[in-house]
Amino acid sequence: MAKKISHPCWIWYPGDMEIYHCMKQNFSREERGYDWPAYWHMDDWNKSVLFSRETELEEETTFTAYASGVGYVEINGKKYPFGKEIRCHPGIVHITALVGNMSGLPALYVEGRKIWSDTDWTVTNYLDEQPLKAGWSPLYKSRSISPEQIPYREREYHPAEEREAVSVQGNAGTLFDFGRLINGTVKPGLPPAKEVTLCYGESDLEALDEQWCYYKQTRVTEDSILRRRAFRYIFIPDVHAGEVKLTAVHTYVDIPVRASFHCDDELLNRIFDVSVETFRQCSGLFFLDGVKRDRWVWSGDAYQSYVVNPYIFFDPEINKRTLLGLRGNLGIRQHLNTILDYSLLWILGVEHQYLMTGDTEFVREIFPKAEDLIKLCLSQTGEYGFIVGRRQDWTFIDWADIDKTGPVAAEQVLFIKACETMSLLCRLIGGQDDIYRKKSCELKENLNRYFWSEEKGAYIDSYQSGKNHVTRHANIFAVVFDVASKEQQQSIVRNVLLNADIPQITTPYFKFFELDALCRLGFLDEVMERIRSYWGGMLERGSVTFWEEFDPGQNAPEQYAMYGDPFGKSLCHAWGASPAYLLGKYFLGVRPTSPGYQTYEIKPVTRFFKELDCQIPVGKETVRIILKDGEVTTETFYPED
Amino acid sequence: MAKKISHPCWIWYPGDMEIYHCMKQNFSREERGYDWPAYWHMDDWNKSVLFSRETELEEETTFTAYASGVGYVEINGKKYPFGKEIRCHPGIVHITALVGNMSGLPALYVEGRKIWSDTDWTVTNYLDEQPLKAGWSPLYKSRSISPEQIPYREREYHPAEEREAVSVQGNAGTLFDFGRLINGTVKPGLPPAKEVTLCYGESDLEALDEQWCYYKQTRVTEDSILRRRAFRYIFIPDVHAGEVKLTAVHTYVDIPVRASFHCDDELLNRIFDVSVETFRQCSGLFFLDGVKRDRWVWSGDAYQSYVVNPYIFFDPEINKRTLLGLRGNLGIRQHLNTILDYSLLWILGVEHQYLMTGDTEFVREIFPKAEDLIKLCLSQTGEYGFIVGRRQDWTFIDWADIDKTGPVAAEQVLFIKACETMSLLCRLIGGQDDIYRKKSCELKENLNRYFWSEEKGAYIDSYQSGKNHVTRHANIFAVVFDVASKEQQQSIVRNVLLNADIPQITTPYFKFFELDALCRLGFLDEVMERIRSYWGGMLERGSVTFWEEFDPGQNAPEQYAMYGDPFGKSLCHAWGASPAYLLGKYFLGVRPTSPGYQTYEIKPVTRFFKELDCQIPVGKETVRIILKDGEVTTETFYPED
Repeated sequence: MAKKISHPCWIWYPGDMEIYHCMKQNFSREERGYDWPAYWHMDDWNKSVLFSRETELEEETTFTAYASGVGYVEINGKKYPFGKEIRCHPGIVHITALVGNMSGLPALYVEGRKIWSDTDWTVTNYLDEQPLKAGWSPLYKSRSISPEQIPYREREYHPAEEREAVSVQGNAGTLFDFGRLINGTVKPGLPPAKEVTLCYGESDLEALDEQWCYYKQTRVTEDSILRRRAFRYIFIPDVHAGEVKLTAVHTYVDIPVRASFHCDDELLNRIFDVSVETFRQCSGLFFLDGVKRDRWVWSGDAYQSYVVNPYIFFDPEINKRTLLGLRGNLGIRQHLNTILDYSLLWILGVEHQYLMTGDTEFVREIFPKAEDLIKLCLSQTGEYGFIVGRRQDWTFIDWADIDKTGPVAAEQVLFIKACETMSLLCRLIGGQDDIYRKKSCELKENLNRYFWSEEKGAYIDSYQSGKNHVTRHANIFAVVFDVASKEQQQSIVRNVLLNADIPQITTPYFKFFELDALCRLGFLDEVMERIRSYWGGMLERGSVTFWEEFDPGQNAPEQYAMYGDPFGKSLCHAWGASPAYLLGKYFLGVRPTSPGYQTYEIKPVTRFFKELDCQIPVGKETVRIILKDGEVTTETFYPED
Repeated sequence: MAKKISHPCWIWYPGDMEIYHCMKQNFSREERGYDWPAYWHMDDWNKSVLFSRETELEEETTFTAYASGVGYVEINGKKYPFGKEIRCHPGIVHITALVGNMSGLPALYVEGRKIWSDTDWTVTNYLDEQPLKAGWSPLYKSRSISPEQIPYREREYHPAEEREAVSVQGNAGTLFDFGRLINGTVKPGLPPAKEVTLCYGESDLEALDEQWCYYKQTRVTEDSILRRRAFRYIFIPDVHAGEVKLTAVHTYVDIPVRASFHCDDELLNRIFDVSVETFRQCSGLFFLDGVKRDRWVWSGDAYQSYVVNPYIFFDPEINKRTLLGLRGNLGIRQHLNTILDYSLLWILGVEHQYLMTGDTEFVREIFPKAEDLIKLCLSQTGEYGFIVGRRQDWTFIDWADIDKTGPVAAEQVLFIKACETMSLLCRLIGGQDDIYRKKSCELKENLNRYFWSEEKGAYIDSYQSGKNHVTRHANIFAVVFDVASKEQQQSIVRNVLLNADIPQITTPYFKFFELDALCRLGFLDEVMERIRSYWGGMLERGSVTFWEEFDPGQNAPEQYAMYGDPFGKSLCHAWGASPAYLLGKYFLGVRPTSPGYQTYEIKPVTRFFKELDCQIPVGKETVRIILKDGEVTTETFYPED
């Protein structure tokens, strides 16, 4: 699947663009007047890299090299500045370009009839044993779009409603409702010299709370340049309706939506559409958890987005960017986001990308970083080969009362799956997979020996504590990642999933895995019921995107609170998009049966629908599924058609 | 020697300021229209660091934190923005400040009556086992001087001479001679809208060569902001004398000169003064090789500057900055400047800093980085424990015809000395030095067994090639670094140093070591003769600073050429300053006899002088040495006195 690109593009040291932008993303959180960079170590991109290209010219040609940074181009030993046309004589031409950039991303762009920047160029950071193939992205084909910028598309929105209102603090003013979530900037239309204050809100209550709204901008004038923020409402104290004109400029990375869902149940249709809207909002250069609050790239959240991706976008590029940005450089010392399970989920993410695309070239590129990470994990194994968090590691799994004494069952399940993934990756690049195969077998055996309780008919959290505590988590992972046997699965269903005595999953993060497990085990009616009530409940409350968490027993203002903060809840959170995945995979039954959708199956479960007219991507093609008069028809087509 | 500072200062992750500025320095080379970043891997400073400070307040107080970067201050769990006064209640106060900076150096400055930023703060990059003591520098005490800037002092100079001249290319114009080396910018006094071209030169011939001068700036107007460059002459084509007014703004890091030399020999006095001028010019934030061409920080050149430093400045700070900037981060994979011997010289530089200052606190801080580097070296040992360059390493030693087959003698001598240094450093921090002591003994034994040729009465370059080739280099190192026995030294004198059949040292870099060896062996007359003829020869040619290289048989224009470039020679090169060191150490006889000049000796060799009135620093004090009427008197005083 080696791609040859026929146009110039910006090139860089592979992974650098993603590492650069991932840090920028993790630096973008702001809250009530201060900035809040992520609290973990973030790897650096390279600051000085050397590009190379050798070619044989039949006739004289010219080219011009441009750089993001300082340096030179050298042709057969002679140096030239960037930005000037260079003449090359016929014969063997060895070109190098050294680009240094202390404050940004060193990158190269070469334009010419015979010579241009593409993936035929190699690059080194002066530490590599061998130069690597240069990195590039279809987002950065134009010289005028610097790879340090995000090539956002823009769309202007005007308020859907505008009304006079009084803030929580008792100040009269005007509340603007854009009727949809905006992630972008605001252009204030103000009389000259007039200064106003903007209070942003995902909800009207947040915008109306001058003290507790997350973003607030004082002394805004006509000329103010405002930061990119996520909001639906803006409250401006001390102005009357009509006195100020607001225009919102929504900014987004354009990733085409390739799925659609229409059935006879309007609620389901809306749930699907709002899932798609939620997922689009949380998909920029990277998969984000949410757009208002953290705006950090979390490996656990991203894993779920890799899984949803083929049922909405089928875009391999955002997966690659997110995997590369999260992972950083060789020589890893800290787990992703400091979380042990998030490192393991990253490795699973690489497998997912392969199964979705069949792209072995990417596997080859990322393999050294996967190996570097699994080596860190392997260095943390102890008794029976189980993985254990170090003092500085966060053994997260979920916000739940999990017994985390010694080795934790849920981590071992992920570790088994990560070793199986490494074994697959080794085979794909033609290497030896013995150690990973052996390791996963040994781990599986020991998981069943030490964590499986015949008495409980389930996996216990910890065998060291002696408490035999059962939570849903390890058991759900064991189902989702195919670690439990068929018999164990049936036992888990009875003793855990359908057992009301086992504490319920409370976070949407883990509900994602729970619903996936239920679908795999055939409990589609239960899942359909939950989709309609849980996601439908948010729609009933007027949501335009799906939330970080939803408790049907709560109403405004409590429904907006989280983490002890009255507006702490993100009202547009990536994991809220799971219905699109669940409907596509389990209800429409569209699933690959070999890597890269070389083969796939389409098995809609028709008993849930009277009518269907849906589209789901299956690789480069899209399948249209129609159910009418009890009969299913499918057709595939290329999106360009 | 723990210092407690009583004023606020900028603080950062230790080493980061030096790494940041060292990269900036290594990115500052320019040549004939293009930039030329250094061609090796440069480590990155941290982009996101967390500062901490705990204290107990007896009464309420306030402070304000400022950051170079984005982030927040947190006091007992509550976050505040930077730049606003924060009130602290009495009791235990735990303060943290997270500073992220993607494009520059994350740093913190805290002002308050009870709480301010100083070395009581710790800092972590989220990877450290324990937070480290924050880094700081006396250069950055003022909030208004950002640690991303170099706090240059400025001094304006007007041309000493201005005359009409014709360039090599035949264009008439005006040549400006500032009469001294400027390292700074130019303010052009021009009529509005007038555009001119500036051609810079360290020599008049360089400035008059519009094609081959290193720096040339076209389209200069009154408002042009010109880069910092090193020059003495500027040629402006197409203008008459008087038509343009040029003002040069010389910029420099103010490191006071504490040595002076006056004797009855005016030539020696001038050689000393020009040595000092040369050394000052090459001493900025870091020791540079030269000011016109590379402007990169080279570990070998820097080593010689550490050695010269106590005889001119006695400034420990520039040593520390250079050592930290060169060394970079833990996890080293590439030798300093890619050169094996330069890594070893870096370790020797740490010992030198300790012997000069007695500062064990710095030893403690830098020890992990020294250990990390020696581990890389130890990983490259093979037969008989000798160190050998890897494929990607440059085994430099000198530009000379050295037999570099297998292990090279000169590298082993440095390696022995580096292991001895590591042993000393271990003892200083209260650690075990066994492995280094054992290693250096074993190496010394094997050096004498395999590299010492009884037949030649000298060390041979390589024992593997069978050529028994003798060069001066290993033998000089063995004398300078006390690796050769007294008997071997005498043999080396006869068979190498005074043996005209052994090829002469041709580079001033190695002449530094050669003259040092000759002085140690008592050949002061020979050294004095060389100082007067070699350095005197440059003065005869009108030099205002000492050159990178000098061949008494050459005159202009050949004398300015080097590396195959007509103006490739740097006319202000740090190693040109060695006479100041040689005169101070061996002729005035000022030498420490214990670390940190706790004890020292002053033994002027009076037969060379009729009169002397000199000052040489001896730690915090300065010694004044007077020779008059055959009698030597000395007195010491504090420079402040």
